[in-house]
Amino acid sequence: MRTFIVVGHKAVTTPDFSLEDLPGTSGRMDILCRSINSAFVLSHGIRRDVQVFLVLLGGEAPKTLRLMGDQLRHLNPDERTTAALLKKALAIVAGPEWTRSTPGIFVRSGGLAELLFDFQDAKLFYLREDGADANTCQCLKEDAVFILGDHLGMTEEEEAMIEHAHAERISVGPVSLHADHCIVLVNWMLDTRAFL
Amino acid sequence: MRTFIVVGHKAVTTPDFSLEDLPGTSGRMDILCRSINSAFVLSHGIRRDVQVFLVLLGGEAPKTLRLMGDQLRHLNPDERTTAALLKKALAIVAGPEWTRSTPGIFVRSGGLAELLFDFQDAKLFYLREDGADANTCQCLKEDAVFILGDHLGMTEEEEAMIEHAHAERISVGPVSLHADHCIVLVNWMLDTRAFL
Repeated sequence: MRTFIVVGHKAVTTPDFSLEDLPGTSGRMDILCRSINSAFVLSHGIRRDVQVFLVLLGGEAPKTLRLMGDQLRHLNPDERTTAALLKKALAIVAGPEWTRSTPGIFVRSGGLAELLFDFQDAKLFYLREDGADANTCQCLKEDAVFILGDHLGMTEEEEAMIEHAHAERISVGPVSLHADHCIVLVNWMLDTRAFL
Repeated sequence: MRTFIVVGHKAVTTPDFSLEDLPGTSGRMDILCRSINSAFVLSHGIRRDVQVFLVLLGGEAPKTLRLMGDQLRHLNPDERTTAALLKKALAIVAGPEWTRSTPGIFVRSGGLAELLFDFQDAKLFYLREDGADANTCQCLKEDAVFILGDHLGMTEEEEAMIEHAHAERISVGPVSLHADHCIVLVNWMLDTRAFL
């Protein structure tokens, strides 16, 4: 199972954003929608062996959305219908346990700290421009957790948490890319290894 | 200059599609919007050394849109604002010469045949699942033209034209991906070579 965690620093935690102006009203939920597309969408279907966690930090308290490829339904590749699914999930009152919204989409309270606790036994990678080259790194493996920031990168506090969780820093290339493009590349790097 | 040609087999040639339902009303213009994002968008700016041609075949006669990175303005990463730019360009009466819509976006009548004529002296690559591995292929080069299909692939007639134009078949990996993900990978392959 491939796991991607994307931190949306301004992403809203309530459903009162507009599908007509995602970048302007949702705290850049559009970045998270594109990350979902990159993580799951294939030409003929979706990747069942992927899960995505979206950490939403633009509300009063953090919330996390979870999308599980093996259960997902109704996922279309376009941003707007993905945003509509997230909107639906954010209408649910979130407690500390996962609550299901639509098939394969879950919500709970809490943010990055809680996720890092859940994944304390997993192999963690933190995508950062100054990391080791992911494509030549022997360490890259299928059952890993890949942590990515949005357009704002990570705060010092988040970096300290990630460091403390023993995440390995990797970089996907020489040019600084958005999270969704990085996810396309990680999926591809793992695909090519799987077929070697 | 990197050039990407994406053929939208059902993509409309008039501006009367809805930004509220891109996939349903525009002949999958959403695929073309995501291809534009993949071709141009970087973390801090856009790729100036890229141009994209969108061949729109869902109208009475083919039209082609051209986006030039060195002149582009107002390009945001989200699908909807990109679609709004394309809508604007499609409101222009298109003749056989390029007419400018907004900065960096042009439109003309004609389709793939006309583009292949324009690029008769260029190195052409046709992205197809059964092509040679693009990443290990020595042939990959910066000043090339990459031709991609949308969700419908290419017709036999189009394949014959592309073949006749001496395009080399390449594949970007073991898994069948959407055009926008393929473009991310081609850009990355060229980036990593440029920085070797």
